[in-house]
Parts: sequence; C-alpha cells; structure tokens
Amino acid sequence: MDEFQQIYKINTKKSHSLYKKSSNIFPGGISHNIRFFNPYPFFVRKANGKIITDVDNNNYIDYWMGHWALILGHSPKIVSKALAKQVMNGTLYGTVNNLSLELGDIIHNLIPRAEMMRFASTGSEATMYAVRLARAKSGRKFIAKIIGGWHGFNSTLLETVNYPFSSAEGMGFNPDRNYIKSIPFNDLDASLKILNSIKDNLACLIIEPVLGGGGCIVPEKDYLQGLQEFAKKNGIILVLDEIVTGFRLSINGAYNMFKLEPNLITLGKIAGGGLPIGIVCGEKEILSLADPKNRSKEGYCSIGGGTFSANPVTMVSGIQTLTFLRKNKDQVYDKINNLGNFIRVELEKVFYEYNINAIITGIGSLFHIHFPNDNIIKIKNATEVALCDREKLKNFHFVLMAKYGIFFLPNKMGAISYVHNKQDLIKLIESTRSIIEYKLLQ
Amino acid sequence: MDEFQQIYKINTKKSHSLYKKSSNIFPGGISHNIRFFNPYPFFVRKANGKIITDVDNNNYIDYWMGHWALILGHSPKIVSKALAKQVMNGTLYGTVNNLSLELGDIIHNLIPRAEMMRFASTGSEATMYAVRLARAKSGRKFIAKIIGGWHGFNSTLLETVNYPFSSAEGMGFNPDRNYIKSIPFNDLDASLKILNSIKDNLACLIIEPVLGGGGCIVPEKDYLQGLQEFAKKNGIILVLDEIVTGFRLSINGAYNMFKLEPNLITLGKIAGGGLPIGIVCGEKEILSLADPKNRSKEGYCSIGGGTFSANPVTMVSGIQTLTFLRKNKDQVYDKINNLGNFIRVELEKVFYEYNINAIITGIGSLFHIHFPNDNIIKIKNATEVALCDREKLKNFHFVLMAKYGIFFLPNKMGAISYVHNKQDLIKLIESTRSIIEYKLLQ
Repeated sequence: MDEFQQIYKINTKKSHSLYKKSSNIFPGGISHNIRFFNPYPFFVRKANGKIITDVDNNNYIDYWMGHWALILGHSPKIVSKALAKQVMNGTLYGTVNNLSLELGDIIHNLIPRAEMMRFASTGSEATMYAVRLARAKSGRKFIAKIIGGWHGFNSTLLETVNYPFSSAEGMGFNPDRNYIKSIPFNDLDASLKILNSIKDNLACLIIEPVLGGGGCIVPEKDYLQGLQEFAKKNGIILVLDEIVTGFRLSINGAYNMFKLEPNLITLGKIAGGGLPIGIVCGEKEILSLADPKNRSKEGYCSIGGGTFSANPVTMVSGIQTLTFLRKNKDQVYDKINNLGNFIRVELEKVFYEYNINAIITGIGSLFHIHFPNDNIIKIKNATEVALCDREKLKNFHFVLMAKYGIFFLPNKMGAISYVHNKQDLIKLIESTRSIIEYKLLQ
Repeated sequence: MDEFQQIYKINTKKSHSLYKKSSNIFPGGISHNIRFFNPYPFFVRKANGKIITDVDNNNYIDYWMGHWALILGHSPKIVSKALAKQVMNGTLYGTVNNLSLELGDIIHNLIPRAEMMRFASTGSEATMYAVRLARAKSGRKFIAKIIGGWHGFNSTLLETVNYPFSSAEGMGFNPDRNYIKSIPFNDLDASLKILNSIKDNLACLIIEPVLGGGGCIVPEKDYLQGLQEFAKKNGIILVLDEIVTGFRLSINGAYNMFKLEPNLITLGKIAGGGLPIGIVCGEKEILSLADPKNRSKEGYCSIGGGTFSANPVTMVSGIQTLTFLRKNKDQVYDKINNLGNFIRVELEKVFYEYNINAIITGIGSLFHIHFPNDNIIKIKNATEVALCDREKLKNFHFVLMAKYGIFFLPNKMGAISYVHNKQDLIKLIESTRSIIEYKLLQ
C-alpha cells in the first residue's frame, strides 16, 4: 500500500497543500466525518457527468455520486440550465411559492403514501421530525432502530452506527439515549423479542428498507413484513427511511417494491436533485399534527421547516430531476438496474476466479464489496459487515482511486447513475482483475 | 380589517387557488410554521433586489428578506452570476473541495474567534452541534437558554419559544426536556439565580446577542458581560448564536461589538449568501473534539456534516457575499445601519405624533415595532413582547402588505438590506402615517 500512497501523493500535491491549510480551520480538515481518508482526501475542483476532477487535474469516475444522491450524474444539463435561470430570480424567497407546490405534487403522485409532507433542508432534520411526529401521535417515548442503521446526525438517532454498536457514538449526546433500542437487521425473532419488551411504550420503528451506510444489505424475505405486522398489531408507527432508496430503487419508493405500508416515510438526496432537502411525509392523520393553524391546540407537533426549507433553488433541482425520471422511467431504471446486476455478477466472478473470498451485496443500482474473514456466504446485517476485512476493502478502494482513477469513498457502497455505461463497469472489473493479478489486494 | 382581507383576496386570486392545493399536500399549506398567515400567504414567483413578486404579479418591497438572510437583497448579480457558472460544474461534490476552504478562510479572518469550524446545512443543525460539543467538552448535561430565544427546530433547543413559555412547544419532544433551563433576557439577577442553581452541571449557555425571533431586543448594558463573567467563573461554555446577527450587525460578528469572548459561535443565513448553511465554530480546543481521526478515542464528539455540507453552490454564494461585504464594508454597513437608525427614529416620531403607544426596537439594520398594552417605555425581554398588542401589529403588517405593497412577515422584525434606499423607508413611514390617519391601525 505504501507504494500507492506514494503515487497518490505525487499526483495530488495541490490537494496535499490545501489539506494542510484545511486542517487548521476544519477539525480533521473536512466538513463531514466520512469524507476523511488516509493520507488525505483529494480536493474536488469540478464535477461533470460521471467525472469528478480534483485540483491537480486528476479525473475520477465517480461511484460515490454525492453520497449516492446524483442519480443523473453531476450537473446534468436539464438540471443545471434550469438552475442557472432560477438563481437570477431568487435563491431564498422565505415564503410559500409555487415551485414547492409543484415539487410536492410530483412527489405526492409518485409516492402515494406521501399523503402529506413537510419540506426541510436535510435528511437529519427529516428523520428527527419523523421521530417527533411519531412520539406526538403515539404519546409514547421509545424509538427502535436497526443496529448499523443510519438516519443522520440528529441527537436522537445517532446511535448504534459503528461497531461494536454497544457504546455511544461519542461524547455529548442528549441524556435520553436510553430511550433508543436497536435490533439486528434480518433477524426477525431476535428483533421481535427486543421490540416486545418495550412494545407498550414504543412510539416508532425507523428502518431503511435496504441498509445503506450499514453495508448495502438487502432485507431477507419476510423480515420487513414481519416487523410491519408487529408494528401494526401494537400501534407502533413504522417510519421507512428512504433517503437513500427513494427514487433510486424505484421511482415509486422502495416501500412499493417490498410491499410495505409505512405510516411515515423520509426522503432526501435525489428528491432535491442533489441540493439540500429532507422530507418527512406519510399519513395525513399524522402529518396534520404539524399544521401551524393548530398551534394552540392539544396534540400540535412543532416541526421545521427552517430558513432554507422550500427554497426555489432546491425546488427547481428536484422538479427537474424527478420530472426527467418520471418521463424516462423505464429507460433510466432499466439501465441502472441492469448495470447494477451486471457489476454484482461480474465482480463476484472475478473474485471467485482468483479464489478470493468476497461477497457483493446490493440491489438495483447500489453495490458493495465485502471481504469476509471467515466462511460466511451471505452478509445479512451490519455486524457481519463490520467483521469483514475492512482494511482490505479500504485498500482496494484506495488503489482503484490512486492507480485507476475510479472513485469510491473508501469503505462505502457505490451507486451507478444514469451517466455510467457498461464500459465504465468493464473498466472497474478489469481494474479489479489487475489489482488481484498484481497482488495488490491486501 | 375585513376590508383589507377582501382587497388582498381580490389581488391574490392565483395564490388563493394555489394555497388550496398546497393545503392538501402540506400541513397548513406551508413548509415553515411562521410562513402561514391569515387568510393565506401569497405565493412568490420571483425575487429580485428588494422586490418579491407573487404569482398574481403583485410586487412587494421586502423587509422579510429571506428570514433576514439576504443582506445584499434577492439575487444580487455578483452572487447569481457566480452561481450560474457553478451549477454547470457541480452542485454536490460529496467530498472536500477548495471552495469550502476558501469560505472557511474568509470566515476565519473576519471572525477570529472562529479558530476552527464545521460546516453543516442549517442553523438548527449548527446549534444542535454546539450543544453536543459543549456537553462533550464539559461532561455536563444542563443547557441554559433565554426565554423567547430562538435556536432552530432541533429537539434540544425548541423550548420556551412562545408565550407563556411555561409548557412544551408541542407534543413529541425528547424525554430529556428537563435538562433545559431558561432565563429572562436583560434581567441579570434573575438569570444568575437560575444559573446558579444548576451551575455544577451546566454545560453551556446559548444566547443570541440580540434577541431575534423573540422580538428584536437589544441587550442592556452589562447583561451579556455579566452572563459571560458567570460562565467563565463556573466553567460554563458560552455559545453565542449569531445566525441572525453574524455579518449583519458587523462584518466581524456581534460578539465583537458587545466585547464578548464566546467559546462557541453559531453562524448561518448571510454566511451562505442565503443558500443552506449552518456553521458551528469557535475555540480549537472544543472543535478539535470533532476531528474524525479521533473517532476511536475518549472524548470524541460526533457531529455533522451531512450530505449537503460544504456543497459548492452554497460555498460560492457565501464566498461571493462575504467577499463583497469585506471589500465594501464601510459602504454597506454605514448605509444599512444609517437607514436602520433613520427608520427607528422616524417611525417613533410618527407614532408619537399621533399619540400612539409604540416602541421601536432594534439595532443596526434590524427593526421591530411593538404596540404595548400598558405604559412600559422600553421592551427588554420576550415576555414584554408577547404582552404587547400582537393582533394590532399583525394587522398593521397586513395592511402594509395588502394596500401598500410593503412586506413584513406579519409580526416579525424587518431587515434592511443593501438594496433598500431612503425612498423605500420614506414610503414605509408615509404608509404608516396613512394607516394611522385612515384609522386603519386597530
């Protein structure tokens, strides 16, 4: 690996110099914890289509795609042209506007369970408000989440994110941490046992239909159904966090694919076409609690909003992106899903060919490589992901980046966007083959 | 008032129709609780300079200015031209980038107490992270805030915002609400008494140097100093929330004007030129706790970030705005502060002339009208604001909007931006005079 760190350093001298300066101003030199990697992250100068270009003019084929938000790639013309026009006519109206109604309408039509919705500016806000609405509706206090589930940085849900999942994710959290219970993904019996112990005081269960940050893990048959059945029976609100999966796995939401009926859904990322957005939506009966006209009444639930909510820049970006997806639904999803199937199958083949223990997880356009330390043949929860050889994966991603110009945020899953093509994936496969042949996978 | 509701309805037919649709999708028809007003808010179609235009083509001189964020007005050319270029080259890199370093540098130079900083996407996030850092640093649990202080929608700080300040701001909040203590603004003795009772377990005091949402109230001599002295003596972290005041009252922060030495500062609004941003900044010793390289260590504090943090669109908007402010510092602040003094004095004169009990609060370019119900001659805290005739103020703002095309978000303070001029303020004064003369102030 030292060799590739050297190559990387030689090729990213300007980034190195900027990183030193950045470290003086930003803790760790970054504005998002996962954006740091050793020896230092490169600094992006521009991004177009599938390519990000750093300040030293290195180009990378991007599979990180803005935290998986850019389903049409970077700066697609249909979005950027509309944005260039919008920024001349206002970036922050600070009031209601017809663009937010237009985007709301589109989402409402695509995601029928989004009977009503509230726009905020980040996913962390959306999940925070979902929890608040669930507590308001139910009058209960406990929240259940998945071990390894990621729902943003809000104080309530930043729990059991990193292995060994047993201690706090750091210092300084709110004193009410003990109201969060975490359950193991894909283990229905164990999950129900835990949920059962708090069921009378359980406000909601929040869950990603496919574990995203936790390792790109697909739910096993009947797991989500089993949880939903339990929730329904016990008056527990089911919050489906579709910030990653919404408009990515299907234009109608993953809940539709998995035949779920969540009471609340959180959306973000693609919904704003890559500009800041978070949405909490779902049953009218719950969302209505947030109507400010009921402010003085019992049962009112105060959620944001925020200064930037429904700003016209995000609205235009979301409208353009979702309209394109709707109009070209079959074309887009067939393409990215087929490419997803292709890369999962082909990567498995390569590793099998060289007798390397690797498991490729994912669904649709999402995929993730794991190098198990033992002989497991399937990855079914975040603990198993954590017990894989994460160092090997990090190194693999690093060599892809430093030697082959292929960018994954080290250790994170990849997302195929509409601008990727089969050639890009063949390049990824061939690069993987070279890495193995040159014995660089260590 | 019915007359003006009628006039408003006749002039805003398209808005009315959109509002009906909007109410089916968004609780209360809005995406931010305060954006609703009776009978329905108008829908904005575009915004340029000082003017917002609604879907019925009514123009309004805007003093709401995007939640007071748009110090250069709507879509200033120096910002929008740079944005139009940026959106062609990426809206969400999802990695570190030189633009975030550039904006960080500018802020660091203007606000020297911002030794280090973390970019997030909203003010609600910034204050949430400030609290988390304070709890992490101190190992203490209690948080003190001001009665009527506004720090966004996060679950910890959405407390004692609305009169009578004694009950929760609604249902569904986290069960640890009792770790928040609220103190009365501008009453040092009463404040210290409350703080004293929890001083050994008090992590931080979070305070706006000028109460913003609480009523545009200036601190009395020695109040902030007295709190700071107490905080220093007792190892309590002072968090100055400058999301409204930062870059508005002074390019170097209000903390500088008031000779304060906060340990942490939160910024937002103007810092991103009106695009989504929230910043927690301050002493290196505290911010360093958030360095992800310390993740496995004792004392690490995990804060966002978020998908959209340091996105290049917000960065460009912030860089352009702050650079303009820095280069034209005297010109901008002299102008808007002088206009602020002018409007406060002249509005007082008009009301005095007609023997109407009104108090104009504010400082710099911020101003707010209050109609006291009794004979108080000064407004010194949020309770006194709440006890004023809020209905009269709402009606006053409504008539200004419906008859004179002057927009304040009803009941909220106004902000003068660099695009306003003396003629605009004279129009506001003359309109006020007419409203009084026609006996419309009721």
